[in-house]
Amino acid sequence: MSIGTLVLLRHGESEWNALNLFTGWVDVHLTEKGMGEAKRAGELLVDHGVLPDVLYTSLLRRAITTANVALDAADRHWIPVHRDWRLNERHYGALQGKNKAQVKAEYGEDQFMEWRRSYDTPPPPIEVGSEYSQDQDPRYADLEDAPLTECLQHVVTRLVPYWEATIAADLRAGKTVIVAAHGNSLRALVKHLDGVSDTDIAQLNIPTGIPLVYRFDGEDLAPANPGGTYLDPEAAAAGAAAVAAQGK
Amino acid sequence: MSIGTLVLLRHGESEWNALNLFTGWVDVHLTEKGMGEAKRAGELLVDHGVLPDVLYTSLLRRAITTANVALDAADRHWIPVHRDWRLNERHYGALQGKNKAQVKAEYGEDQFMEWRRSYDTPPPPIEVGSEYSQDQDPRYADLEDAPLTECLQHVVTRLVPYWEATIAADLRAGKTVIVAAHGNSLRALVKHLDGVSDTDIAQLNIPTGIPLVYRFDGEDLAPANPGGTYLDPEAAAAGAAAVAAQGK
Repeated sequence: MSIGTLVLLRHGESEWNALNLFTGWVDVHLTEKGMGEAKRAGELLVDHGVLPDVLYTSLLRRAITTANVALDAADRHWIPVHRDWRLNERHYGALQGKNKAQVKAEYGEDQFMEWRRSYDTPPPPIEVGSEYSQDQDPRYADLEDAPLTECLQHVVTRLVPYWEATIAADLRAGKTVIVAAHGNSLRALVKHLDGVSDTDIAQLNIPTGIPLVYRFDGEDLAPANPGGTYLDPEAAAAGAAAVAAQGK
Repeated sequence: MSIGTLVLLRHGESEWNALNLFTGWVDVHLTEKGMGEAKRAGELLVDHGVLPDVLYTSLLRRAITTANVALDAADRHWIPVHRDWRLNERHYGALQGKNKAQVKAEYGEDQFMEWRRSYDTPPPPIEVGSEYSQDQDPRYADLEDAPLTECLQHVVTRLVPYWEATIAADLRAGKTVIVAAHGNSLRALVKHLDGVSDTDIAQLNIPTGIPLVYRFDGEDLAPANPGGTYLDPEAAAAGAAAVAAQGK
């Protein structure tokens, strides 16, 4: 049995991407543009003959809808589905719902970039009971010690054991796996896959809606194509630059 | 632990419902009307406080899309999902792709009604390799002895063991379960639940897009409300009459 193929797919543009707000665990909808990106992602899968056998998503609508639309466009809407909070976006703490440009103006460039891109410094925790808190959200009712803020290190810590127990096992079984998730949960996964350092991961940006494909030679799941291969490299480069420029 | 609640949801209007064609395992899309029915189904779930904990679907797009749209409207898009061919519509054999009114004109009312509603007489089998056959469909590649035609008895035979192993177990564990499926797979399930006779089941029609709720008192899953309760009884009665009138 040869090793399977991994497809990482960041959700299409959300309403809060478009408004330049910190989103985190707030469950916003895709924009029309985001729906179009999701459909295009499915068409790219077909064009490149990368047809998923199994889907993993976060518990957030923007990733779930992206997967639904992309897989329908690829005629793979019928594959098995697994959803888990450990694929959720990084919890952005007290920044959830705040405008990125305003946060930057209020706290300065250095603090802004530290909250966005430092590996181990989380933003201040969100206040329980506040507007953009998830403390009453039924999808997390059984989750003990649900986070009130996270840095990227926290995301790696929650995600890697889940990866090993589920997605990695499917890849070792030869499956083509698609993971529909978020900017920071996918950065955490890429960091783990490619062995990116705690410092260098700050420079890595993942564009919305473009499938990123990893292939593997052996059971250790060291990438045969380090960094992965975007199915539309030109759009991916432009999209990554746009992510890097957020808040500017 | 009290027993859970069951919600049966027949997919919204499909392109082939609208064209009055026998569909079976052919994987057609919903119409715009069908998408609207699915959204309305989700709103009915919210209005009645029936919020699913887990979703079961067939492998067919019209049921999968109905569930996606309904659960998104009900803010339950994030619940676990199970898909299985045993919830598929009845395989309509050589009738798949044929117009119901034409079949009735060609074969006569008696033969037409026998194929549509007799419990144990399947239509002629579909020819392997023909336009509306599923023999090359990857979603059934691992299925041994995939059917080439089915009567309702065949659907009961494939569905009831699956029901016992999965959905019934979730109900006994107290969950609210939504099953998004098809006219005949839901008729098979209702026959089992309500103990409808092989003869009487011919008269039972299930409308598209209206949640049908069953509640239970005990682990034997005998319905506390035999026949179930439609969340919009008036629309359900009109819809069931429309199903009964098909081919007229």
